[in-house]
Amino acid sequence: MLRFLTAGESHGRCMVAVLEGMPAGLKIDLKALNIELKRRQLGYGRGDRMKIEVDNAEILSGVKNGLTLGSPLGLYVKNVDFRIDDLIPLTKPRPGHADLVGCLKYGHEDIRCVLERASARETVVRVAVGAVCKQFLNEFGIVVASEVLMICGEKNKSKMIKKIEQAKKNLDTCGGLFSVTAAGVPPGLGSYVAADRRLSARLAGGLMSIPAIKAIEFGLGTGYAIEFGSSVHDAIYYSKEKGYFRKTNHAGGIEGGMSNGEPIVVRCTMKPIATLGKPLDSVDILTKKPEKAAVERYDTCAVQAAGVVAESVVSYELAAAFLEKFGGDSLNEVKRNYKGYMRTLQ
Amino acid sequence: MLRFLTAGESHGRCMVAVLEGMPAGLKIDLKALNIELKRRQLGYGRGDRMKIEVDNAEILSGVKNGLTLGSPLGLYVKNVDFRIDDLIPLTKPRPGHADLVGCLKYGHEDIRCVLERASARETVVRVAVGAVCKQFLNEFGIVVASEVLMICGEKNKSKMIKKIEQAKKNLDTCGGLFSVTAAGVPPGLGSYVAADRRLSARLAGGLMSIPAIKAIEFGLGTGYAIEFGSSVHDAIYYSKEKGYFRKTNHAGGIEGGMSNGEPIVVRCTMKPIATLGKPLDSVDILTKKPEKAAVERYDTCAVQAAGVVAESVVSYELAAAFLEKFGGDSLNEVKRNYKGYMRTLQ
Amino acid sequence: MLRFLTAGESHGRCMVAVLEGMPAGLKIDLKALNIELKRRQLGYGRGDRMKIEVDNAEILSGVKNGLTLGSPLGLYVKNVDFRIDDLIPLTKPRPGHADLVGCLKYGHEDIRCVLERASARETVVRVAVGAVCKQFLNEFGIVVASEVLMICGEKNKSKMIKKIEQAKKNLDTCGGLFSVTAAGVPPGLGSYVAADRRLSARLAGGLMSIPAIKAIEFGLGTGYAIEFGSSVHDAIYYSKEKGYFRKTNHAGGIEGGMSNGEPIVVRCTMKPIATLGKPLDSVDILTKKPEKAAVERYDTCAVQAAGVVAESVVSYELAAAFLEKFGGDSLNEVKRNYKGYMRTLQ
Amino acid sequence: MLRFLTAGESHGRCMVAVLEGMPAGLKIDLKALNIELKRRQLGYGRGDRMKIEVDNAEILSGVKNGLTLGSPLGLYVKNVDFRIDDLIPLTKPRPGHADLVGCLKYGHEDIRCVLERASARETVVRVAVGAVCKQFLNEFGIVVASEVLMICGEKNKSKMIKKIEQAKKNLDTCGGLFSVTAAGVPPGLGSYVAADRRLSARLAGGLMSIPAIKAIEFGLGTGYAIEFGSSVHDAIYYSKEKGYFRKTNHAGGIEGGMSNGEPIVVRCTMKPIATLGKPLDSVDILTKKPEKAAVERYDTCAVQAAGVVAESVVSYELAAAFLEKFGGDSLNEVKRNYKGYMRTLQ
Repeated sequence: MLRFLTAGESHGRCMVAVLEGMPAGLKIDLKALNIELKRRQLGYGRGDRMKIEVDNAEILSGVKNGLTLGSPLGLYVKNVDFRIDDLIPLTKPRPGHADLVGCLKYGHEDIRCVLERASARETVVRVAVGAVCKQFLNEFGIVVASEVLMICGEKNKSKMIKKIEQAKKNLDTCGGLFSVTAAGVPPGLGSYVAADRRLSARLAGGLMSIPAIKAIEFGLGTGYAIEFGSSVHDAIYYSKEKGYFRKTNHAGGIEGGMSNGEPIVVRCTMKPIATLGKPLDSVDILTKKPEKAAVERYDTCAVQAAGVVAESVVSYELAAAFLEKFGGDSLNEVKRNYKGYMRTLQ
Repeated sequence: MLRFLTAGESHGRCMVAVLEGMPAGLKIDLKALNIELKRRQLGYGRGDRMKIEVDNAEILSGVKNGLTLGSPLGLYVKNVDFRIDDLIPLTKPRPGHADLVGCLKYGHEDIRCVLERASARETVVRVAVGAVCKQFLNEFGIVVASEVLMICGEKNKSKMIKKIEQAKKNLDTCGGLFSVTAAGVPPGLGSYVAADRRLSARLAGGLMSIPAIKAIEFGLGTGYAIEFGSSVHDAIYYSKEKGYFRKTNHAGGIEGGMSNGEPIVVRCTMKPIATLGKPLDSVDILTKKPEKAAVERYDTCAVQAAGVVAESVVSYELAAAFLEKFGGDSLNEVKRNYKGYMRTLQ
Repeated sequence: MLRFLTAGESHGRCMVAVLEGMPAGLKIDLKALNIELKRRQLGYGRGDRMKIEVDNAEILSGVKNGLTLGSPLGLYVKNVDFRIDDLIPLTKPRPGHADLVGCLKYGHEDIRCVLERASARETVVRVAVGAVCKQFLNEFGIVVASEVLMICGEKNKSKMIKKIEQAKKNLDTCGGLFSVTAAGVPPGLGSYVAADRRLSARLAGGLMSIPAIKAIEFGLGTGYAIEFGSSVHDAIYYSKEKGYFRKTNHAGGIEGGMSNGEPIVVRCTMKPIATLGKPLDSVDILTKKPEKAAVERYDTCAVQAAGVVAESVVSYELAAAFLEKFGGDSLNEVKRNYKGYMRTLQ
Repeated sequence: MLRFLTAGESHGRCMVAVLEGMPAGLKIDLKALNIELKRRQLGYGRGDRMKIEVDNAEILSGVKNGLTLGSPLGLYVKNVDFRIDDLIPLTKPRPGHADLVGCLKYGHEDIRCVLERASARETVVRVAVGAVCKQFLNEFGIVVASEVLMICGEKNKSKMIKKIEQAKKNLDTCGGLFSVTAAGVPPGLGSYVAADRRLSARLAGGLMSIPAIKAIEFGLGTGYAIEFGSSVHDAIYYSKEKGYFRKTNHAGGIEGGMSNGEPIVVRCTMKPIATLGKPLDSVDILTKKPEKAAVERYDTCAVQAAGVVAESVVSYELAAAFLEKFGGDSLNEVKRNYKGYMRTLQ
């Protein structure tokens, strides 16, 4: 059973994760892992922090001479801007952010106590965790990728950029839509036998846990509400060469809560970032008087980065479901079990 | 910690659930519970089974003289049509259903071994579980409801019905869109501190585990991809009477992965039912020859019923998050803790 | 991942369990399962209830034509003595039982609300769950058995019986010691990499959850506190025929939190049953006045039965660890994976 | 819900833990935390490593200006002796250690790949985790302590020391017995309603996960197998000043799987350390030829240290059960809920 916990605040000393359950004998490519962290920092519309600070993950544990040991991996990303104890208190919560509710829930009187953790900075170690899972999945020919599909209503790349420039000029922010695709997934990950074992449920839960994600759809997604059944289900075919296959993939690779062997395709809608240069109406949590919301350093648009985070989430969930199906404590054992199953499909 | 497991096959003896973690002292209204089961059977476009069979839950355990004991609740719904061992084998999987992959995964040669459990019949005890949770939430003024918003592209009620009639005539099926709303939820359920504690993530995971659900969106949902940040975030206000409040609820009641005190609003897209009267192309799993898919008894449209199931899922997830926040082993204790917190919000 | 929940009160309608995660294709022998339930009712010193009432489990779900489907098993045992709503309230808690604390915790004013669930009756479905797991383990040559080693200080069978007779005459009760042995367990179940994955930890947790168990020891157990290291660790040998083997088994089959291939041997101490015919000092929970504790129907001695329950707990925990190691959704797949691993050990 | 994961190898860069679920507003005393780490290094019979290396935990996250934030705590302990990639391979497994099975399970050909994680070094961060929990429990007047009761059969302090000296001279090792006591625990932590919610089960599971622990007993423990029921159960009394109380505590503070308000008393038997200066028979895992086991740096006796680790485990499990019972996201909220409950007990 794969599992992880993360810790770290935005201006704390570091971001850290422990990933438990990865089999032994997996070659970890730290360079490739850090390329994922780099990818997370890219995208048109990112703030200045991204330009100054280059994230580099260090592996604290779980690896000896480049190979996983089967013991938990410690993943560590330093924060360059470490001064959590010296930050000036903030008391004007930003609409759309965790600020206000976080203070009510935890009894904080400084919204920094919330935003330091509610920050998207947390996703840096989730990407590190996901990158390890990606390397695991690659061993089985599974490839996970993402693509930006829309920014502020625009589907054309140059129009997207224009929207971001317009938003930036107006001290505003942009949301958008991206897809994540996982190709090479064998049929039978997840299960219909219990609600919480459905792969779709786990992917949706994981993806909805990414800050600012507000909608998730598989395959045709919301389009399913418009069509008749006869035109949307993916007819089943068989050939000796391919085994079972489909000519369409409206289901986004998932039927009955399980991977069906077609590429998994999921789309996520990201809301515009909640920190605005021209802040919205808010209330000072100490005085209860109306004020404009706090203004922090912010990105105009981070949809592309969110796509990278989503790849990580998908990679983690797929690796977890994969290990549940196939078991095994070493990469060799997982491969042996996997091959044994794949042979039964032919 | 609230948790449950369900068991039961469509033509097995019964559907059964164990719900663990409900506090003691909650008055269980079995009549109200069975009204939820009845609601799950309604809706224009349901098949004949719904007309014949009226589901009635029995409480096997966990209740004494009408009050919960704090021990696990056993919930039981009899299947009228009990003949699982005598069913004729099926070998032609229905596209869009668990049939094919389920057989590959579990090594079955009769797709009945899959569809008996992958059936939407499982949701009957999830509704029973959810109904208990609803009664718990009602004690705190939390009310959960659902509404059909679209059937096969139509938003107008009489046009929806026409579409269903058209589908029925054509031996086809209809999907659609529905919303679930939870009013009266206190701010601070769920948390941003860990990915899997976000209320949005848990709701999305739960909802996506309902058979045939393919898209989930909170508040503005996919609409967030179109707008600038300044126009979508819900500005924060305060008055002595209301405390903190919003004039808009684009966020669907969730900020930073937590309930923010506004109604939680989530929309789900359901795909058209995968069993069709005029079946799609398929393959016989034994002969591997092309065949039309199996035809089983089916509903033309079950979007309204799915809304009722979704209410149950939302009720369960809210009750679980509520009990995590407030703790307590008896209803009195939960109420005392709840009131203590609510007083700090004023 | 194997998991289960149970429900049911002693004088409620039934005891019920849902067992989720058992692979498909396992032949369930209901007769053998019910022999385990019968074994749980035996033993010198049992009360009259055991003589009247013969427990018979019914399988509600998860099985078709005698084979598991891969979907959850519902297990049901009827209570003959069903009258929970009509029981006369009790207010004098029995020392050594859950009565007093249960009322404080859950806010009950009738200790029946506690003892109905805290009853050893709950173990009947745990034995049913364990019996299914035993049948699974048998497929891999793993055999679990128990033996009474001591009753009230006596190790000799006829002296044990005398003690029980003496206790019965005095309206008193007897505790004792029993062992559970699991032979045929492959090396490598459980893991040292995380505290909660240690097989020893899981077995200890499971066994200590059996009512009245107060001590758990593996192999030499408390005897390890007396000896030097050089005389207690099991030296390692190898032969072509046997592979690695030991000449001693002080470790009780567990090293580093993992099965080591030798028989797993664990001993449990059971306290004397807390219901006494000549009751101890207690307090009426309503009047707060000193009173003698309530007297309910009771067993003089149930150590042998507790051994059967412990076999079930051990069988469940081994099956869970086995499925984590080997994965697999059908018995064939688990066997294929198991054999692949076993070959690497030679 | 409190949870944690640890990572780190004995000669890796560090040991690290993430502790999730600790409420906000708890003052963390780092000095007191490090005194616990120091206590873990003490005790007659420790090896040289303990003398050179002084462990100091650093808090990576979850704390701002000395107070917990409600977000996960990252806990970090540096390894002075960091050279995991340069260690010379070992192939002669030590009987009694994870060496042999770990290699079989994970497919390693160097037993260092196992012993680096199976090392008792892992417990250093578990003590750090436990120390945080201890500080939390202290806020509610709960105090956890341990005491060595026996070394190699000796109960007298000076005789214990002699045994250790004798063992040291003979290049041998000593096991022993220690107790952990938790005073001030309110009645009602844990529950009888489900097997895995019993406090006794959780404590036993946690304690049995400490390396080298082979037996766990509550209160009278194995002594319960010798006595009649009438002489061992703790009669119940009540006075206006004390509320309910007992004159004896044979139950070790636990009845029906719940704390009963009396001190929790649990004893653990530790086997002698498996690394011996005069090694036992073993087998080279590569050549399969008989060899003496590997000799690593070792402690002659670590029973006192194991007691400190056990305090940590008990503190963690109590804090987890405490937070389940009382809920709450800030220390103030937990205290308010706790006080509300305690008032009902009077």
